[in-house]
Amino acid sequence: MQSVKQCCCIERWSLTQAKLCLYRSHKSRFNFRNSIASAIFKEGSPLMLHFGMFIPAIQGQGTEEQIKKWLKRAINMEIIGTYAQTELGHGTFIRGLETTATYDAEKEEFVLNSPTLTAYKWWPGGLAHTANHCVVMAQLYTKGKNCGIQAFLVQIRDEETHMPLPGVKLGEIGAKFNFNTVNNGFLGFENHRIPRDRMLMKSAQVLKDGTFKASSNPKLVYGTMVYVRVIIVNTASSYLARAATIALRYSALRRQSKLKANEPEIQVLDYLTQQHKLFIAVATSYAYFFSARWVWRLYKKVTMDMQQGQVDRLPELHVLACSLKVLSSADCSSLIERCRLACGGHGYTLASDLPQLYALCSAICTYEGENTVLLLQVARSLVKAWEQAHKGATLSPSMAYLSDRSPVSAWDSSVDGIIRSFQKVSVGKLSEAVRSLKENSQKMSPEDAWNMTSVQLIAAAEAHARAVVLSIFKMEVENSMFAASAELRGVMTSLLELYVVYWALEKTGDLLLFAKLSEADVRALQRRYERLLTEVRPNAVGLVDAYDFRDEVLNSALGAYDGNAYERLMAEAMKSPLNQEPVNQTFHKYLKPFMRGKL
Amino acid sequence: MQSVKQCCCIERWSLTQAKLCLYRSHKSRFNFRNSIASAIFKEGSPLMLHFGMFIPAIQGQGTEEQIKKWLKRAINMEIIGTYAQTELGHGTFIRGLETTATYDAEKEEFVLNSPTLTAYKWWPGGLAHTANHCVVMAQLYTKGKNCGIQAFLVQIRDEETHMPLPGVKLGEIGAKFNFNTVNNGFLGFENHRIPRDRMLMKSAQVLKDGTFKASSNPKLVYGTMVYVRVIIVNTASSYLARAATIALRYSALRRQSKLKANEPEIQVLDYLTQQHKLFIAVATSYAYFFSARWVWRLYKKVTMDMQQGQVDRLPELHVLACSLKVLSSADCSSLIERCRLACGGHGYTLASDLPQLYALCSAICTYEGENTVLLLQVARSLVKAWEQAHKGATLSPSMAYLSDRSPVSAWDSSVDGIIRSFQKVSVGKLSEAVRSLKENSQKMSPEDAWNMTSVQLIAAAEAHARAVVLSIFKMEVENSMFAASAELRGVMTSLLELYVVYWALEKTGDLLLFAKLSEADVRALQRRYERLLTEVRPNAVGLVDAYDFRDEVLNSALGAYDGNAYERLMAEAMKSPLNQEPVNQTFHKYLKPFMRGKL
Repeated sequence: MQSVKQCCCIERWSLTQAKLCLYRSHKSRFNFRNSIASAIFKEGSPLMLHFGMFIPAIQGQGTEEQIKKWLKRAINMEIIGTYAQTELGHGTFIRGLETTATYDAEKEEFVLNSPTLTAYKWWPGGLAHTANHCVVMAQLYTKGKNCGIQAFLVQIRDEETHMPLPGVKLGEIGAKFNFNTVNNGFLGFENHRIPRDRMLMKSAQVLKDGTFKASSNPKLVYGTMVYVRVIIVNTASSYLARAATIALRYSALRRQSKLKANEPEIQVLDYLTQQHKLFIAVATSYAYFFSARWVWRLYKKVTMDMQQGQVDRLPELHVLACSLKVLSSADCSSLIERCRLACGGHGYTLASDLPQLYALCSAICTYEGENTVLLLQVARSLVKAWEQAHKGATLSPSMAYLSDRSPVSAWDSSVDGIIRSFQKVSVGKLSEAVRSLKENSQKMSPEDAWNMTSVQLIAAAEAHARAVVLSIFKMEVENSMFAASAELRGVMTSLLELYVVYWALEKTGDLLLFAKLSEADVRALQRRYERLLTEVRPNAVGLVDAYDFRDEVLNSALGAYDGNAYERLMAEAMKSPLNQEPVNQTFHKYLKPFMRGKL
Repeated sequence: MQSVKQCCCIERWSLTQAKLCLYRSHKSRFNFRNSIASAIFKEGSPLMLHFGMFIPAIQGQGTEEQIKKWLKRAINMEIIGTYAQTELGHGTFIRGLETTATYDAEKEEFVLNSPTLTAYKWWPGGLAHTANHCVVMAQLYTKGKNCGIQAFLVQIRDEETHMPLPGVKLGEIGAKFNFNTVNNGFLGFENHRIPRDRMLMKSAQVLKDGTFKASSNPKLVYGTMVYVRVIIVNTASSYLARAATIALRYSALRRQSKLKANEPEIQVLDYLTQQHKLFIAVATSYAYFFSARWVWRLYKKVTMDMQQGQVDRLPELHVLACSLKVLSSADCSSLIERCRLACGGHGYTLASDLPQLYALCSAICTYEGENTVLLLQVARSLVKAWEQAHKGATLSPSMAYLSDRSPVSAWDSSVDGIIRSFQKVSVGKLSEAVRSLKENSQKMSPEDAWNMTSVQLIAAAEAHARAVVLSIFKMEVENSMFAASAELRGVMTSLLELYVVYWALEKTGDLLLFAKLSEADVRALQRRYERLLTEVRPNAVGLVDAYDFRDEVLNSALGAYDGNAYERLMAEAMKSPLNQEPVNQTFHKYLKPFMRGKL
């Protein structure tokens, strides 16, 4: 019997391909990340990795000759590619990949193999039935020696018949939480041979005789990872902005309970508890919108510097991109859930689009560097910076505050003061973690000590990331509101303040420990927060209208601009195939005999 | 074009009905809540409300005559019913329901109407195509007067043809996050007439001439709501237990990264960060398992007392059931997500069953009393108790600690001491909220003051609920371990301690404010927590094996008892219809012309 989970994937697949064609015929220049694309490919496009990874890999890791041979065909989509790194049994730890590419000097070919089931490539978008080419990351063996992970451009399907080539095993990995039109696939090799020139040899090379020449600047690989993470911050912010728009608009039209006996039922948006749920979602989507813009500018600057041979700020950019990727994905996905839950039962229907947004956004916590793994990388840099600062070295701008070991002064409740307090929290947590790490190192190996301290290290990394986002949001609101009207500046300033005070209240424990907060201060923050909620209330709907999402992009019965949520919910329901006839034929087959006790 | 969201619901529906029949033929006694049922109806059964609400409504609200007429037929499933209260535009605020039942004394009939679109019943399980009867909550009008919400037993489909009766409009509400086989429906009436004896008249009555006789003891309605919420605590705990089993087993077989260069990749369960994610999930599922058992015993006791006319403890039970329902649904669903995310990419596939468990569990936050609404009810009782205590009254056992206004003594780090500190936190938060409420009341109407204080009131209610769960868990572990082996007692005591210390670290802010915690104490708690993680580690898999879920119930490639996660993931993937042929025919229709630029 066919599994329920799996049914209808062929319909989805067919529909997605039809949409691809439609999309092409209406646009000369492709961009599968913009919001029009997201309105069309609601569960993702099978070409995401073709544009996002396959083409960049050729551009970044191919020789001039290779670029000449492949790039134009790829851009024209005469060939469609994807990027295969993760394996069924291996993700984060790239050195642990099992796929092998063994050089055969006699035939001048690489022989690809998946020695075990866990070596099968798993997840690449478009790999199952769309792509006919693939960049494959594999362990290179030449002259009997392992030369680490290298990239190979591998044809996997016949261009004419689309049949998998001999020695290539391909398929779909099955149903997921979302991305069900991305055509994620698996890929295994059995003595599949490719010519020597299919190894992408911009940096490392294998000569005809099998001699291996290592890469001169392995740091350059960082670049792409950083780029993707910078983009992701914007994606997370935009998913949250959609959820906030839906929940805010619905809360303005939904009425529930009478606050006073002789008045009509009130808009749920007028409940302080609802404002408490939603306004932080609005503020957060703005905070990451600004953060994404800020880090994008930094990325462009660092990339330009790199082209002139300067790689000094790359490590800092790496830490910033990791920090923002982690915090934006975690915050935005949990706030999307908060928006969904704030819409009650209607938030649970797919017609609201809120469950899908959650599944899309929460995937970011896992892909392109799992959040916990990235936080540990950030922690590693912080510990290093901590020690450098101790030795009097100058830290990079975004970590400079770690050098300030002056004692904590009295609590300052201004926005700037609170942000400085968050920096003190970060310093305090890092200092604690370093102290624990040292203590543990005296009792066990450095690796075990690191592991034993890792919960504290992650907390320190998160505190750093939090301090960074608060500063960026403050800075960017100030800069961008410079020329704005007094009214707009007022609205944005309230939103920023709400964001800062919200986080102060969330982190009272840390602020009490590290920033001289008192009980009276907490009480004052609480009152201020409540006042800020009522202050933001009149502009709340305006703040999400300002995102200017088209109804086609929002794709939500609850969030449509016209506010006709109930009519739209009914219209969506009526589309159910089960509503096309009053009595489904299965009644006679199953239900009736069942009720007569005849089954 | 058919919406992707909606496709395949007919297949699911047909399959569900076939399963109903199979299930009946294999079991003489039905129980759609036990785990065998959950293994069969993975997205819920359309008979859930037949057993959970329709039959109890007849039993609880019907006259003897009505019970005689309907109960046996319902139990034998000659008729299938459901329970319709929520409307498209009305949920929590029951008095706001719009469906009307107007008594026509001449014909001795009620005339049912849905005056607006928002009056349509929305959500009842089985309502769309399964049920032919329904208990409908509607505004009763007789002699031109509104007599409040009453329950009516309404036939909605013909028993022979299953066609909707005249004046009855029915359908499916469409795709949801989960529960897609529950057949949730909508229902509208247009002058649909039913005989007078279809009003369930155990308490309130309408006489032949239209005279309304109000209910003598409206409190009795509480009983059913409390019962359902008590059951829910067990359901939430059991969903989390499943997720914890899956994530723990997978983390024991998954290997990732080398901690030390010359050793093999380690089990991810040996990372402290992974233990930090998962062990609290295990502890929490036990905490709510014990809480559910405890509150179930109390429920039975109170019910027995009620049969003897004693209703004193009903309000306390109501508050306890609300508190536990809120906290268990919120904690269990967020921890299921934590388990899912801890399984990386594979946790994202439906083959893991983790996304489905999350969607099932998080629905509990909304149904049977939305969590925020329930917390405000709890807060209302707490404020009342606070004032009674102030006047010297004796509080109910679970609130007795609120009377203790003795100053906070020094921090006591024993498990009992921490639990007492959580009670102090609850007292402190309630005291703060009451103070704010009074201050606000001087500036605005009582209703506005309540609204303006509601964020604090909810925090106070949550703190009370937290203190209650901690106490119950402690008490129940102690009682149930009395006769256990020293080894088992040791394991359960560590788990309890881990739970208590975890929450102390989560709530350092509150404990610093209200329970004399110091910076040194926080540091000690952190070390103790890390030690407890390593202490629980050897028994972690045993603790979830002890739940004894069958593989058929877990339904997870990652969590199967044999640990063959990778083989099972591949086997699940191979079931995809897209994997039944190497090249899908749509290639020739869409993809090939697309790649040749001919579309």
